[in-house]
Amino acid sequence: MTLPLQVGILGASGYTGVELLRLLAGHPGAEVVAATSRRARGQGVVDLFPSLRGWTSLAFEDPDPERLAERCDLVFCGAPHGVAMDQVPRLVEAGVRVVDLSADFRIRDRAVFEHWYGETHRGPDWLGRAVYGLPEVNAGAIREARLVANPGCYPTAVQLALLPLLESGVVATDGLVADAKSGASGAGREAKTHLLLAEASDSLSAYGAGGHRHLPEIEQGLAHAAGEPVDITFVPHLVPMIRGLHATCYAWLPEGVAPDLQGLFERRYAASAFVDVMPEGAHPATRSVRGSNFCRLAVHRPGEGRQVVVLSVIDNLVKGAAGQAVQNMNLMFGLAEGDGLASPPLLP
Amino acid sequence: MTLPLQVGILGASGYTGVELLRLLAGHPGAEVVAATSRRARGQGVVDLFPSLRGWTSLAFEDPDPERLAERCDLVFCGAPHGVAMDQVPRLVEAGVRVVDLSADFRIRDRAVFEHWYGETHRGPDWLGRAVYGLPEVNAGAIREARLVANPGCYPTAVQLALLPLLESGVVATDGLVADAKSGASGAGREAKTHLLLAEASDSLSAYGAGGHRHLPEIEQGLAHAAGEPVDITFVPHLVPMIRGLHATCYAWLPEGVAPDLQGLFERRYAASAFVDVMPEGAHPATRSVRGSNFCRLAVHRPGEGRQVVVLSVIDNLVKGAAGQAVQNMNLMFGLAEGDGLASPPLLP
Amino acid sequence: MTLPLQVGILGASGYTGVELLRLLAGHPGAEVVAATSRRARGQGVVDLFPSLRGWTSLAFEDPDPERLAERCDLVFCGAPHGVAMDQVPRLVEAGVRVVDLSADFRIRDRAVFEHWYGETHRGPDWLGRAVYGLPEVNAGAIREARLVANPGCYPTAVQLALLPLLESGVVATDGLVADAKSGASGAGREAKTHLLLAEASDSLSAYGAGGHRHLPEIEQGLAHAAGEPVDITFVPHLVPMIRGLHATCYAWLPEGVAPDLQGLFERRYAASAFVDVMPEGAHPATRSVRGSNFCRLAVHRPGEGRQVVVLSVIDNLVKGAAGQAVQNMNLMFGLAEGDGLASPPLLP
Amino acid sequence: MTLPLQVGILGASGYTGVELLRLLAGHPGAEVVAATSRRARGQGVVDLFPSLRGWTSLAFEDPDPERLAERCDLVFCGAPHGVAMDQVPRLVEAGVRVVDLSADFRIRDRAVFEHWYGETHRGPDWLGRAVYGLPEVNAGAIREARLVANPGCYPTAVQLALLPLLESGVVATDGLVADAKSGASGAGREAKTHLLLAEASDSLSAYGAGGHRHLPEIEQGLAHAAGEPVDITFVPHLVPMIRGLHATCYAWLPEGVAPDLQGLFERRYAASAFVDVMPEGAHPATRSVRGSNFCRLAVHRPGEGRQVVVLSVIDNLVKGAAGQAVQNMNLMFGLAEGDGLASPPLLP
Repeated sequence: MTLPLQVGILGASGYTGVELLRLLAGHPGAEVVAATSRRARGQGVVDLFPSLRGWTSLAFEDPDPERLAERCDLVFCGAPHGVAMDQVPRLVEAGVRVVDLSADFRIRDRAVFEHWYGETHRGPDWLGRAVYGLPEVNAGAIREARLVANPGCYPTAVQLALLPLLESGVVATDGLVADAKSGASGAGREAKTHLLLAEASDSLSAYGAGGHRHLPEIEQGLAHAAGEPVDITFVPHLVPMIRGLHATCYAWLPEGVAPDLQGLFERRYAASAFVDVMPEGAHPATRSVRGSNFCRLAVHRPGEGRQVVVLSVIDNLVKGAAGQAVQNMNLMFGLAEGDGLASPPLLP
Repeated sequence: MTLPLQVGILGASGYTGVELLRLLAGHPGAEVVAATSRRARGQGVVDLFPSLRGWTSLAFEDPDPERLAERCDLVFCGAPHGVAMDQVPRLVEAGVRVVDLSADFRIRDRAVFEHWYGETHRGPDWLGRAVYGLPEVNAGAIREARLVANPGCYPTAVQLALLPLLESGVVATDGLVADAKSGASGAGREAKTHLLLAEASDSLSAYGAGGHRHLPEIEQGLAHAAGEPVDITFVPHLVPMIRGLHATCYAWLPEGVAPDLQGLFERRYAASAFVDVMPEGAHPATRSVRGSNFCRLAVHRPGEGRQVVVLSVIDNLVKGAAGQAVQNMNLMFGLAEGDGLASPPLLP
Repeated sequence: MTLPLQVGILGASGYTGVELLRLLAGHPGAEVVAATSRRARGQGVVDLFPSLRGWTSLAFEDPDPERLAERCDLVFCGAPHGVAMDQVPRLVEAGVRVVDLSADFRIRDRAVFEHWYGETHRGPDWLGRAVYGLPEVNAGAIREARLVANPGCYPTAVQLALLPLLESGVVATDGLVADAKSGASGAGREAKTHLLLAEASDSLSAYGAGGHRHLPEIEQGLAHAAGEPVDITFVPHLVPMIRGLHATCYAWLPEGVAPDLQGLFERRYAASAFVDVMPEGAHPATRSVRGSNFCRLAVHRPGEGRQVVVLSVIDNLVKGAAGQAVQNMNLMFGLAEGDGLASPPLLP
Repeated sequence: MTLPLQVGILGASGYTGVELLRLLAGHPGAEVVAATSRRARGQGVVDLFPSLRGWTSLAFEDPDPERLAERCDLVFCGAPHGVAMDQVPRLVEAGVRVVDLSADFRIRDRAVFEHWYGETHRGPDWLGRAVYGLPEVNAGAIREARLVANPGCYPTAVQLALLPLLESGVVATDGLVADAKSGASGAGREAKTHLLLAEASDSLSAYGAGGHRHLPEIEQGLAHAAGEPVDITFVPHLVPMIRGLHATCYAWLPEGVAPDLQGLFERRYAASAFVDVMPEGAHPATRSVRGSNFCRLAVHRPGEGRQVVVLSVIDNLVKGAAGQAVQNMNLMFGLAEGDGLASPPLLP
């Protein structure tokens, strides 16, 4: 391998695409050599994203897995779920390593995937081969992986909030609640009425309260941490902001137990570059991670009772998508974990 | 009593003040004859609130309970907690009926009040005499009341969400969670750094996760509904919007129980003019009640499991404050419950 | 004519539709009996607009001008330009009076229309018969009109700002500038990428700087006021807010002239119920008219020089669309001009 | 000089302070060794600005110019105007080079300063010694300067928009208009009612229409470019967004002149790293520069007439304040002009 890494982005005209381009523009060891988009083919990347004027001269090209594989050391797949399922195997078989940002390879159990996504999985053999790309859990496997399934935004925030509690067994595995709030960029760049500024601004609503596709991914990750199945209720909400995701997670201590929760969290993430355990009593704001790959956590125990409340914030497009993908790439190629992720958050 | 009612507003320069003035401008049977503000005394109401140009020619006057009582049939007290405690008894003793929008007379147990508000209650005898002004529970007592303690915004949304479940006994009284989200107007009109647009916009954070003053009010109301103490965790969040409050409430069904939740809610509020039970599967948005006195509710049971999720939205300044106060006034004086509250929400 | 007026809305699934429904819900002398939408036919109005739950039980029906005409005294046509052109003549010929909210009948000069809108006008005879519905100029003709062409949002704000200056001849008719800023609802409810919250929020940009379709309407109105052609530059901007339109208008006094501008404006609008001339030195905010039919104006003369600056704010959906349409209906049917428009603005 | 430069920030608890800290965190040749704040002294920088957790361990110290001078190669003065006037001379006299972000040394004419700022200048001798820090005009002098007066946000955007036109003499020097729109962070971090989210969100208003303090700075810069006095009207507006400044500038071509405006702009800024002349017909959005030091310009000539319209966008906290200050520092110390300013804008 010769640096800089040659990187391609398949499906680059959405928000994860532009965010990958932004982060990789400042990456010391990687260079984006191709960006594809069926819809925007032929247009300059900067015509869609003027923010990148001066940083790239690429034009969007038609997606062609084999041609990408020839030119690239790694491809980020930003295609939507259901499409990635077809493209990703072609990429890996053509010899390129892949970080897939869709949901298609996150769920190990084919039946669970098919239940929640309502379609037959056309590459079921790959489910077992993909490595779930949460570096705070899986760094070793990610380093060796040919195919990394990059976690969803909600699952990232919720798992990082609850892992210390479930891994250590200090809380019950049932009665868990994850009440999560996301900015509108989490819903993507496709034009939909309910995401218009005039619709979504100055308002808040829940969605998917009866069941959301990120639930099985959350359950899978938490069950792995707990060593047994968990029971969790997950309700996402759409918040009138561009970026930012806040998960408020609730768990129960057994009667009579009073663990050192602050210490537990600090120890669990002592070696994690991108997880920041805030001081006791803190309430992290999503803006404190805006544009950065950080997850900030605070753990509370209201009234010194049995309920534990963990507040978890990420930027849904960075740690919740493109930043985590870059972090995974860094691990896969033996680069410094924080390469390309070194800018502080934008505040205010 | 001769109509129109003569109404005064003590402490009218904040958001509840301007909202009362807006609602009462369209009230067929009430007229605001005095608005006080120590800070803005002498200024025209429209100098602070140009939106009211054409609707009022009042100037702010110094607060003087006895002088207000002489001129008014009813006074809305918009003074902050700790101040209302002194003003309200003087008003009632001077013979005027009062709707108090502060927290000072909401909690019946003096010790609980003093614990959460950190000060001695200087009118403890009044705690037993005040009627808690949630019309969906207390309409009869409100009609007769001299002093109505208008509920807080969070307690209104949370109680309306959970009352049908607790009154009917279909859920457990412990393990309750109320994860609530409020627009910035809920924090008032006083200048504070963390409420600046440049701070609070495009961001979301929890606050008071370790314990918030609205908790004892919620506990008191829910315990009354359940007929026994309840155990609830309440976490409020600041959302980048002006108005709107969304409470996402979680409760547990006992094993093996599958009640008709939709029917339960519809029956409970069949006679409530301002509570709208949405169809099954709905997710009310705060903007669907913007500027109106409605509470819209939707009840979910994810995966047909034991967890019940109730979504509850109000406009924090209307049903969560000034609108509920007008509703209480209407009951107290035998007016139609919806007088002054007849405009549809503003959408978009 | 028997009250209440029977009113139809053709093309009711957009923002002018829901705003007409909101305003007419509180109208003492009119009742909406039909709302059409090709796209949403069969759906309940409240399924699209839950804010109207409790105010209407209508379902959207297919647009059929003749059937509407049978049932209605007046039809508001909310169809987009190019469509209205076909529907409106059928409505009027079927005997119903019409307020058309599209641009199709605003421009008297067919060639000008066709130049700016890039299509042949299919009802050119109607251009001369339509009355331009700016009540502050045309109240007399509106009262008699069969067809009122409701002004655009930008033209309303700009004309009201500049009429006093041009009618009185105190400023030059050239060198005029209208720098206008609008909230996103002005662009309608159709899903477009650049109007997504994640695109349009926390950003501002101009558009149409080389020429915007509202320019000829502005020029026509101002020329009428001045009695001669005017030369004006018009640049609109998209602002990250839902409602509100602010026009900042610049005009030049001749050398050596120092008119009483404040008095000029106050006299011009003394009889206009919905135009509020603010005190000297004021800067009206769009929120001071949110949800209301008011236009608030302030006139400045920086440094006592030759430049006059007029600040003009409206709610683009009310005085800039649906509210002005209701005002026109009131005039057409001899109702009080303010019927249905009596609620104060929503602030904050 | 040994790298990294030792840098101090006097008055670091406002938005320019936190923005300097953010930019300098990524600067390869500079290190912040001191940050002062009278109000926040003793607190950790990250206690006020959690976004910087992991990037700085500084605590705010009391401002003491002489002690700063001992430790620093350069001090950024973020003190408010009227305070900087006293601190800056002490710093320079103590031997440290200074970039002052206040208005105190921007205006060369003492009388003009005192007229607009309403106070006696206590360091008038320094007015002539300070170099106006607009690198696109003054790079040579900045390199040698002991004291750089960093331009205001509005003056930066307006001057960059109009310089090509005035330097080349293609437009008239009178009849200029700058209609400017700024996000709320431009008004600073101090708590003021009108800047609350609940006040300023979802609304837009002009301010200072009768005369704003940035006007004399704009006039001074443009007169310098034109070689003669200019006549310009400047009206700023408060926009509901955090960052971003859009200046819409209007100038007049003489009769019969049709210059190649696009070419004029492109040539003028060919060597300017941070000024991006957009393609013909473009409308730059403020978000296209969010978080970056870029100014993007587009020049229009509506209807091929005499009016020239220049659209100019900057991030008010970067090119309008902290970023330009870093750019000036780079020039003063012979570093690469873009050091610390290399991250692409944050979009969406």
